Amino acid sequence: MTRFFVTPEELLPEFLVLTGENAQHAKVLRLKEGEEVLVCDGEGRECLCAISDVSPGQVSLVVKKRQESESEARVKASVYMAFSKGDKLEHVIQKATELGAFEIVAFPSARCVSRPDDKSLKKKLERWQKIAASAAEQSGRGRIPEVITLNSYKEALARAAQADKAILFYENERATTLRMALETGEYSTISLLTGPEGGLEEKEVAQAQEAGLQVCTLGKRILRCETAPLCALSAVMYASGEF
Amino acid sequence: MTRFFVTPEELLPEFLVLTGENAQHAKVLRLKEGEEVLVCDGEGRECLCAISDVSPGQVSLVVKKRQESESEARVKASVYMAFSKGDKLEHVIQKATELGAFEIVAFPSARCVSRPDDKSLKKKLERWQKIAASAAEQSGRGRIPEVITLNSYKEALARAAQADKAILFYENERATTLRMALETGEYSTISLLTGPEGGLEEKEVAQAQEAGLQVCTLGKRILRCETAPLCALSAVMYASGEF
Repeated sequence: MTRFFVTPEELLPEFLVLTGENAQHAKVLRLKEGEEVLVCDGEGRECLCAISDVSPGQVSLVVKKRQESESEARVKASVYMAFSKGDKLEHVIQKATELGAFEIVAFPSARCVSRPDDKSLKKKLERWQKIAASAAEQSGRGRIPEVITLNSYKEALARAAQADKAILFYENERATTLRMALETGEYSTISLLTGPEGGLEEKEVAQAQEAGLQVCTLGKRILRCETAPLCALSAVMYASGEF
Repeated sequence: MTRFFVTPEELLPEFLVLTGENAQHAKVLRLKEGEEVLVCDGEGRECLCAISDVSPGQVSLVVKKRQESESEARVKASVYMAFSKGDKLEHVIQKATELGAFEIVAFPSARCVSRPDDKSLKKKLERWQKIAASAAEQSGRGRIPEVITLNSYKEALARAAQADKAILFYENERATTLRMALETGEYSTISLLTGPEGGLEEKEVAQAQEAGLQVCTLGKRILRCETAPLCALSAVMYASGEF
């Protein structure tokens, strides 16, 4: 079923109106009176609606049922990824959204070769949020993950550590597996932190441990910086019973 | 440690010689006498070597230790992906190699919009195999996964069904999870089959069941055709104790 995102204020209890890009999209899809669509507020609430009228630039809907989204993951997984070159962050934003990430957090670390300056950051954030919105729509999510950027590695550690479980993946870790970390104790929120192209510095790994993060391996193969977060997220979704 | 791939015939017991692209690569890396490198036969055997001489176009090595590769996954996972548009298959070949796939098999299905003709296929296969080789090298694997193309969906099903477990992922499956499929019975080989952009036809799913494949869900979110195989492979690697 086609899925439209509106603001929480626009998700009214009985009648809804789609305008702007949503109305354009409805026109492209040639939706007609009587057809059903889902309208989501991007925060996990949604309405099953029937189209009552299609006018130029405006589609009117009657709410048939209001419900919590059924496609959100049980565990809220925050993907923390170090700033990376080119389109790698965009790739991870798109895929992590599909895979059910709660939010995507980009942060600087010592070996980051690419970090947007403040001027370009605003524009990039807008673009990243659009990528997340589009991926949320296509994958049938009820929530658009927020894309967040932080100013320091320290800030990333402090924020990540607030989750029930906070894990940093390090290619030189051999002993502690993700499974060990996941199988000890319940969790409903989890932070998954991965480094940039050049990896994290040993000092940074020690800092993470001090901040309360657990250091885990993702196996014996070295994963690229854009593969590691998605591998970890897929495993967490599997381990938490999503599929 | 730098890793070079040679043919199984070239992996001699005491002395090795790197030539061609390998020698060029060694030059680019400015490897010097006395430094250690790993030389792999691409089939899981490798030699720890010391460089004894660097000449133009030729690097001589002394074998210090011959060993089975330690970075290969315990479970041999075959990734079966329907032919897809553009660079999606290439993306999956690269990432699945990093994640530890044993082989990558591309096959046609009813809704495939893109399928290379016989003429371009040979060239593409060469390119795909190079992508796998390069990803194997970068991720530190001892084996280069073979990239295989099949001529029919039926052939793909018959081949996939030969593994200890053979699973087809279908977005309309609700009841059977991957976990259910993995937790019943031991396996050392597994086939993971996913559809093209437009998904598999219901008829094709029924055919797969007849051929002995289990039909599973990858969760409530619709994954893109290039995301699904990597999500499934990550989960299988996690479930089989890789990390």
